[in-house]
Amino acid sequence: MAEDALSHPGLDKDAGEEFLQEAFQVMLEEGIRKGMDASEKVCDWKEPEQLQQILDLELKHDGEPQERLLERCRDVIRYSVKTCHPRFFNQLFSGLDPHALAGRLITEMLNTSQYTYEIAPVFVLMEEVVLRKLRELIGWEKGDGIFCPGGSISNMYAMNVARYHCFPDCKQKGNWAIPKLAAFTSRECHYSIQKGVAFLGIGTDNIYLVAVDEKGKMIPADLEKQINQAKSEGAFPFFVNATCGTTVLGAFDPLAEIADVCERHRIWLHVDAAWGGSALLSQRHRHLLDGIKRADSVAWNPHKMLMTGLQCSAFLLRDSSGMLQRCHCAKATYLFQTDKFYDMAYDRGDQTIQCGRKVDCFKLWLMWKANGTAGLERRVDRAFAFTRYLADEIKKREGFQLVVEPEFINLCFWYVPPSLRGQEGCDDYSVRLGK
Amino acid sequence: MAEDALSHPGLDKDAGEEFLQEAFQVMLEEGIRKGMDASEKVCDWKEPEQLQQILDLELKHDGEPQERLLERCRDVIRYSVKTCHPRFFNQLFSGLDPHALAGRLITEMLNTSQYTYEIAPVFVLMEEVVLRKLRELIGWEKGDGIFCPGGSISNMYAMNVARYHCFPDCKQKGNWAIPKLAAFTSRECHYSIQKGVAFLGIGTDNIYLVAVDEKGKMIPADLEKQINQAKSEGAFPFFVNATCGTTVLGAFDPLAEIADVCERHRIWLHVDAAWGGSALLSQRHRHLLDGIKRADSVAWNPHKMLMTGLQCSAFLLRDSSGMLQRCHCAKATYLFQTDKFYDMAYDRGDQTIQCGRKVDCFKLWLMWKANGTAGLERRVDRAFAFTRYLADEIKKREGFQLVVEPEFINLCFWYVPPSLRGQEGCDDYSVRLGK
Repeated sequence: MAEDALSHPGLDKDAGEEFLQEAFQVMLEEGIRKGMDASEKVCDWKEPEQLQQILDLELKHDGEPQERLLERCRDVIRYSVKTCHPRFFNQLFSGLDPHALAGRLITEMLNTSQYTYEIAPVFVLMEEVVLRKLRELIGWEKGDGIFCPGGSISNMYAMNVARYHCFPDCKQKGNWAIPKLAAFTSRECHYSIQKGVAFLGIGTDNIYLVAVDEKGKMIPADLEKQINQAKSEGAFPFFVNATCGTTVLGAFDPLAEIADVCERHRIWLHVDAAWGGSALLSQRHRHLLDGIKRADSVAWNPHKMLMTGLQCSAFLLRDSSGMLQRCHCAKATYLFQTDKFYDMAYDRGDQTIQCGRKVDCFKLWLMWKANGTAGLERRVDRAFAFTRYLADEIKKREGFQLVVEPEFINLCFWYVPPSLRGQEGCDDYSVRLGK
Repeated sequence: MAEDALSHPGLDKDAGEEFLQEAFQVMLEEGIRKGMDASEKVCDWKEPEQLQQILDLELKHDGEPQERLLERCRDVIRYSVKTCHPRFFNQLFSGLDPHALAGRLITEMLNTSQYTYEIAPVFVLMEEVVLRKLRELIGWEKGDGIFCPGGSISNMYAMNVARYHCFPDCKQKGNWAIPKLAAFTSRECHYSIQKGVAFLGIGTDNIYLVAVDEKGKMIPADLEKQINQAKSEGAFPFFVNATCGTTVLGAFDPLAEIADVCERHRIWLHVDAAWGGSALLSQRHRHLLDGIKRADSVAWNPHKMLMTGLQCSAFLLRDSSGMLQRCHCAKATYLFQTDKFYDMAYDRGDQTIQCGRKVDCFKLWLMWKANGTAGLERRVDRAFAFTRYLADEIKKREGFQLVVEPEFINLCFWYVPPSLRGQEGCDDYSVRLGK
């Protein structure tokens, strides 16, 4: 039996390469050419039961021939949503950048786990260059950071570092050894703030929701009120989350005024710019984030507006004293040996809560090299211009109504059915419109 | 300016496809053909300063021509570690499965975020089939689960669900409202347990480290002793982590006996089978995990031994009452609307701590369809057989010494330099050998 296993041939390299070549052509044809063609469907929609039958998903004892597997690849693409389609508007990302995709394909092929310089020499250096560039756009000359699996986890990093900053002992002793913490965020914030405080053992009741104005922006005076309220309840305010680009309205919280409040009360200011951060690339629109350089930390997802592809979420930190490392390190000596033959300052893997970690920097780096900062700026400006164009068209068209003038690239509007037009004054207008 | 942006052409589709075609050929040639060729180097090693000069990583104002970008792709591959190389032994993964890679490439092209059936119809169904298959191998007829960005985060999910199981109020009120928690794990466990308790606000001091025997396996009697110790200190034992396949020695904790202890004390049993879980595919070796079906949760990374590619980590749960959802949901109504046109039970995105979430199931599914369960079993048996072969060779060879007889596919050995041979009895032998 043992000899059987030894003598059984491993992978057939030639057959493997042939399959990859053919699968790649299926991907180009079915996914990219058809996917980007406005005359094709965004998705060949099937009900769950029907799709289950078509796909024959069950995993069986024996393998299948190559031809059948290629058909399967074709089906998987056909019945999936084409997020690169010009009419895909479902989420906060869309489109396909060929250079970013090339970077992603090579990343998958290399299958690197980004722990140390020894295992990821190119990507350790590259991650640092990319993060530095993002920090420069924020306005920080120094700092720290890391790519995380999505903005929700970046926001959790921010909370954990803020907690560590106030109470480093918490890492050893847990929340029981520290005062009850209070976090502050606007009512329009992303739901990951709620998920984060729950996960970190802080609890959703300890979020103080700050009021917003009619555009969805946090009201700094109410933030201050909430902070005083929390203090009067014996809680310790440790974390303010300001949002740049709220999920629904695309609102930008007023960072400079919020930073004033945070400074007065000495509270960590985190900016969730997962969605809006990319506006920093535009000379014309970066004023939306004025004051961001006063933040202690920032979450920024180039996988959204910049089209880098999932996942590409940077957690950025103004601190340059190594707080990220001290907060998260576990010093596993089998991986982060202290007697290596190169400068171990390059081994950043112990800054994270992960062990194995995907390379998320290469796709962004290659896309940036291809387009230059100038090209990315045009991409951002173009998204703003399209939004402006659509807003103007909506205003001209009967039966359509803007919810609020857009300042970012979210556009919220109502379609008013003929039966409701001209009845804005009625008591149940908004209820009926919502239905 | 706005009109400029509108009229500026978007992506050139033909040029984009041509670049992708060429980058793919670079990937095949430089990454796969050379990468899998034993006569080539695993890595063209450069010191950090030298590599920085070669790569010219800085991101600039203007973009670069396609030819230069292709050279850059070539360089990135050349100076990266080829994890598919037959002599790559650095970490707990290696090799390259062409079907898994094809699945990964298509996943990247589709760029799906796995929130809901609406946005990810194929992958919502597929994830469930794959997770069910993994649960069957554990021995569970029902259950729950989700793919996570790596085993460390899967282990954190386990802790969070265990905490929620004991004290559902913690989600709202934080750790301050519940007794001090105590977690139990062996001295040989993965460092993510330590990272997890720190992140979740439980604190590393509240881990009770259980003694191991000479093979690195947890001693159940000592587990019971530690539990009683924690109770006598007023702590609440909520979580026992047993490891299947420890990182260094590859030891399997005795699950059945540990499950007895957990049942007696009514404590959540989590099995970190990130590394060893894949042995469940082998009829011959699955006895190493006897008792795993009594676990409450399991972490299992097919990206390790099965060669699925990073990241593919399943968090599996015996509970089928929806605890995963209740523990993590935030009920964001803009994403998880409750008035959709299909059965919303398919929308699993609120079970996670993430918002956007990469598709991690397709590569495993396609690889499984290609090889069948039988082919994956051969792959696992082959890894065991190679390890046995190497262990026997080491025993025959002068100057080499096994640390412990392998029961899994980790093989730890010493090279004893000629000056130390025959001096095993000396006081400073192990110190000198270590140096």
